[in-house]
Amino acid sequence: MTNKNSLTNLQCPMPQMDFDVITMGHGGGGLLTNRLLDKAIFELFDNPILRQRHDGAWLNVQGQIAFTTDSFVIHPIFFPGGNIGELAVNGTVNDIAMCGAIPKYISVALILEEGLTMEELWEVLVSIKMAAEKAGVAIVTGDTKVVERGKGDKIFINTTGIGEMHPKAAININAIKPGDKILVSGSIATHGMAIMCNREGIDFDHTLESDTQPLNHATLSLIEKFGDRIKLLRDPTRGGLAATLNEVARDRQLGIHIRQSALPIEEDVNDACEILGLDPLYVANEGLFTAFLDASIADEVVDSLHKLEETAKASIIGEVVDNHHGKAVIESGVGGKRVISMQVGEQLPRIC
Amino acid sequence: MTNKNSLTNLQCPMPQMDFDVITMGHGGGGLLTNRLLDKAIFELFDNPILRQRHDGAWLNVQGQIAFTTDSFVIHPIFFPGGNIGELAVNGTVNDIAMCGAIPKYISVALILEEGLTMEELWEVLVSIKMAAEKAGVAIVTGDTKVVERGKGDKIFINTTGIGEMHPKAAININAIKPGDKILVSGSIATHGMAIMCNREGIDFDHTLESDTQPLNHATLSLIEKFGDRIKLLRDPTRGGLAATLNEVARDRQLGIHIRQSALPIEEDVNDACEILGLDPLYVANEGLFTAFLDASIADEVVDSLHKLEETAKASIIGEVVDNHHGKAVIESGVGGKRVISMQVGEQLPRIC
Repeated sequence: MTNKNSLTNLQCPMPQMDFDVITMGHGGGGLLTNRLLDKAIFELFDNPILRQRHDGAWLNVQGQIAFTTDSFVIHPIFFPGGNIGELAVNGTVNDIAMCGAIPKYISVALILEEGLTMEELWEVLVSIKMAAEKAGVAIVTGDTKVVERGKGDKIFINTTGIGEMHPKAAININAIKPGDKILVSGSIATHGMAIMCNREGIDFDHTLESDTQPLNHATLSLIEKFGDRIKLLRDPTRGGLAATLNEVARDRQLGIHIRQSALPIEEDVNDACEILGLDPLYVANEGLFTAFLDASIADEVVDSLHKLEETAKASIIGEVVDNHHGKAVIESGVGGKRVISMQVGEQLPRIC
Repeated sequence: MTNKNSLTNLQCPMPQMDFDVITMGHGGGGLLTNRLLDKAIFELFDNPILRQRHDGAWLNVQGQIAFTTDSFVIHPIFFPGGNIGELAVNGTVNDIAMCGAIPKYISVALILEEGLTMEELWEVLVSIKMAAEKAGVAIVTGDTKVVERGKGDKIFINTTGIGEMHPKAAININAIKPGDKILVSGSIATHGMAIMCNREGIDFDHTLESDTQPLNHATLSLIEKFGDRIKLLRDPTRGGLAATLNEVARDRQLGIHIRQSALPIEEDVNDACEILGLDPLYVANEGLFTAFLDASIADEVVDSLHKLEETAKASIIGEVVDNHHGKAVIESGVGGKRVISMQVGEQLPRIC
């Protein structure tokens, strides 16, 4: 699946290594590990903090911070629109952004399966570097382990991030009240369906691509402008929008009312959902956030997001109501209503 | 391998769950994931920060912090003297301690293999909780993923930690100069040989046990007392003491001189190394640190460490010399000298 002519590889050509595939020795902490780290990782991700080369990184941070972790086990590791490397950076950057913080530092911990080619690893590493640059975070510490063939699946990545709270951020689920508007920042179900169609070999006129992207620039522009009137930010990844809406309704014990007609979704994505019998509300998203806002700023927030490429299709999809407490309800185009239940098991395994 | 009658399970009985084994659905982000998190994880690890239940944790930290990450893939997950859960906490706590910092917060990210029993998972989770309490860190955020049977190996754990720098800490490899003393805090090669003997079915009069333990209380007591005369702290895990000594000699471009007779090692561990043809210098350690000290405080440091249970066998093993720059040399009992080369590949795969 490696795209040898990808832009990333042209910009960062792979260094000459004296091996083609990862072996158990690369996880041993000896010379092979050191060579892999020196030639591939430290030089590629170079920055003054990483250069300390201690067991950990020393950082200077101010006041309140946000701290988030995610392990990525997506299959396949290369997919239309991205790969596990950029997904791992964007995922953690976005979790920090959802806390109302400015992503600053991330750690990258790799679990490699014996037999992974150096070429595949390099493509993932370059994507990590580029995604970190795009989001404005520094990779400051890391770890590399190797497991035997058949005890992993090419590569698993944990990224853990630290962000500094934006001084105007006041994310607080308890501030949500009836009348607040609910926004999604773009088209739903894109990431999940891109992976699913790729796995199932379903092709449209053009290939569905994941929308993995950093959302911190968009969320921080909102917080800067609207402060505490942005009450909650969430990225509806696994479990889809359904899980996020249910969690908020349950935790806040208020009702959530969504209009089907207001849900932005690409036509191809919708078609793919119909073919596979999936409800887009339950499909995982990546480059998308949902926000709960004071109603007074709803139009202004949408206008503001429409000016940014990554949120050009932002839309108000519903509101918080003082009714059916603890439940999220969706109204169809013809006025029918149904409760959005939380998915029980697994619809799309290993989607992130 | 689960020890059903272990102390941990008596103190924290497993909650009634409506499943016995982990399925793909537990990683789906829906109801099954939520049930696992609510009943097993959030309640067990409960603390005010975790209770925020956001995508990340909000923390208040002061000034300079240390930030470290490690993924644990040890096999088997239960071993004499511990399991992967406490190893994962202690490993990251110790990496923070080696930075001269006070471990405060950790994240715990689990990659579970479909088919792992809830009983095994529970034992690991309880060990995580207990190790965190012993080290004095709060588990503030986490992640749970599930991969198909045969795509993982029961459980992999990433822990990432944040520590606040001790105000008197001045860990700095560049402060090391000829004449400085080199200390190890206890017997070497214990962890690696405990795992190895367990895997190979080698038994002595009593079973060799891993020495996994938190080292932060010991390192902080030294920093509190001796400040910048503690120049470097390292935990010689993968690659053993040989890797650590080589890295310091290489990075500082000074010579390192070690006396074989001064190296503390348990008799059983030494016997096991001889049977398996392993050099203890290359065997992974866990509950052990090495320190580079100003010579003037060497005796006092040793006396001070001998008062603590976890460092009762601390010993000065050699010194930094203005000779054979970039190399570590060991002197045998009869005066012969040999260079300690860095191990090339993998001696003991998946030891942490």
